[in-house]
Amino acid sequence: MTELFEKEVREQPETLAQLLVRGRPAAEAAAEAIRAHQPRFAMIAARGTSDNAARYAQYLFGTHNRLAVAQSSPSLFTHYDVAPAVETAVVIGISQSGQSPDVVAVVREGRRQGAITLAITNDPTSPLAVAAAFVLPLHAGQELAVAATKTYTAQLMALAMLSAALEGDAARWEELEAVPRHVAAALDLRSAGPREVVSLRTAERLVVVGRGYNLSTAFEVALKIKETCYVMADPYSSADFLHGPVALLEQGLPVLVVAPRSRSFEDLDAIVQLARDQRAPLIAISDARALLEAADVALPLPSGVPEWISPMVAVVPGQLWARDLALARGLTPTRPAGSRRSR
Amino acid sequence: MTELFEKEVREQPETLAQLLVRGRPAAEAAAEAIRAHQPRFAMIAARGTSDNAARYAQYLFGTHNRLAVAQSSPSLFTHYDVAPAVETAVVIGISQSGQSPDVVAVVREGRRQGAITLAITNDPTSPLAVAAAFVLPLHAGQELAVAATKTYTAQLMALAMLSAALEGDAARWEELEAVPRHVAAALDLRSAGPREVVSLRTAERLVVVGRGYNLSTAFEVALKIKETCYVMADPYSSADFLHGPVALLEQGLPVLVVAPRSRSFEDLDAIVQLARDQRAPLIAISDARALLEAADVALPLPSGVPEWISPMVAVVPGQLWARDLALARGLTPTRPAGSRRSR
Repeated sequence: MTELFEKEVREQPETLAQLLVRGRPAAEAAAEAIRAHQPRFAMIAARGTSDNAARYAQYLFGTHNRLAVAQSSPSLFTHYDVAPAVETAVVIGISQSGQSPDVVAVVREGRRQGAITLAITNDPTSPLAVAAAFVLPLHAGQELAVAATKTYTAQLMALAMLSAALEGDAARWEELEAVPRHVAAALDLRSAGPREVVSLRTAERLVVVGRGYNLSTAFEVALKIKETCYVMADPYSSADFLHGPVALLEQGLPVLVVAPRSRSFEDLDAIVQLARDQRAPLIAISDARALLEAADVALPLPSGVPEWISPMVAVVPGQLWARDLALARGLTPTRPAGSRRSR
Repeated sequence: MTELFEKEVREQPETLAQLLVRGRPAAEAAAEAIRAHQPRFAMIAARGTSDNAARYAQYLFGTHNRLAVAQSSPSLFTHYDVAPAVETAVVIGISQSGQSPDVVAVVREGRRQGAITLAITNDPTSPLAVAAAFVLPLHAGQELAVAATKTYTAQLMALAMLSAALEGDAARWEELEAVPRHVAAALDLRSAGPREVVSLRTAERLVVVGRGYNLSTAFEVALKIKETCYVMADPYSSADFLHGPVALLEQGLPVLVVAPRSRSFEDLDAIVQLARDQRAPLIAISDARALLEAADVALPLPSGVPEWISPMVAVVPGQLWARDLALARGLTPTRPAGSRRSR
């Protein structure tokens, strides 16, 4: 039997290509309505993996559409008598299944207040899709593994398509068209590489560090590791990590850095140097040769990927590495015992 | 020598009482200007402990002032060419030292765009204070321990005072006046209790769960544990925890729940039940007798504290327990090796 988790990871180039074709009219329609509404900010409601997609939107909408993003705590809308005023906002609910009642509640309240509302979901008949005025379906097919992979990158793509449609810039659509190819390249690079997980097999803790656009990737890779390996993987922005619990490295805690070459983030370099100094095992997701050579585990990325789409590519070796780690620990990454699926 | 960390924890009733008196004119002045600006949302820039204060503001401003809060990633403003539009926002920078360059950069950009800007800092002459149009000084005196305690609760108080001033409701100010007394009661309760940390002395991992207003408390207690004990304490909203890595409990991972009696959060009850079923060690911060009796480590809270001010009270036993855990592990909570202070 093909392992479901790996199967879904490998479907991603095809899923993304599908979405680019089939999802574009919906993205353009939503963008037109959003432009007409002239929102002052975006509010996004999501949980788990979908919340990491919202993290991507913070950078995407912030730098490309000048739209500030508030990641809503759904309980703010469900457990208190008064909800924040969002009538000048675009309110976006992200949920693979579209079933999450509190994400639905945020979108419903947004619509009640007169906000423009949008659902990003894999099920266009779900309660979330029904609650929102506009729907961006993921067209990703069924996802059976407990840990989401292809629906995560599809959520990023739906957000990226919306951003490109809002900006109305053909060059950005061209860059999006290349994403399936970049993701396929990342899969190939990974399969060609070694699987140096043996020395990490018994690690119970791990730090995952990223920054900027790829802070989302650090959070998502950490979540995959937690979901598939029961390893406590703690995600950080490199700045927060340096200002806080950097001392954890002194205990030889393994650190995974998500560092595609792009904006220079000096503090990522500082963390790599610290890991070397402390002889902490270093796992690197990067397209920078020097960094890959310095790492104990090198997870290479294709080069030449524009930063704004890089989170769809950089997460892929992290997904595969989580699987390798799970297998090395004698676990099955598809359906870890005890976890509940509800996103 | 009195341990600095504990000394600063115990100063909190006095610090908060001072701030209530000395800080009120500044809070009222800022509130008046904010009301005149009619902001559509709030953007808060902060790092580390201060970011947990921003988490509190999300609920506080959302439910009491109908103001949605976007927690900004400072790198969004410092590492990219285009910043989000915040001219309709109130932009708030929170930093104990007021030195954090990227928090300063967010406030400066907000002011350039025409937003109303506010600094919450312990140093009213700091770059952050200079950058903002309005300053709420914390009046907390010098903080010498690496892990922030009294400046954290002072940040919460400054935010709560701003919220009360914006609402202009005398009843809320009366509730604020009682906070120093509640905090003193929490300190007394804690000192009367036992210090059952021995069985947890060797734990390397811990989950900290909260919800609603006290999600901020869960994050802050987890950060204190990381900073003082090098224990990997992972904070979660109870909803996210149940939807994701709940399987971690099966490994007997200790779980700390922050559960002051307030809104009923059924998923907090579900986590307590799961911890009992899995025989995972349970640490409870609560004023609910049944929960305290069920817990392996009971960290009692005074009862009758309104939910909106409870995070200033509920964090206190967490601070003291982090200290106990550090001492039991042979560490000094004041200045753990290798950590850097820059908030």
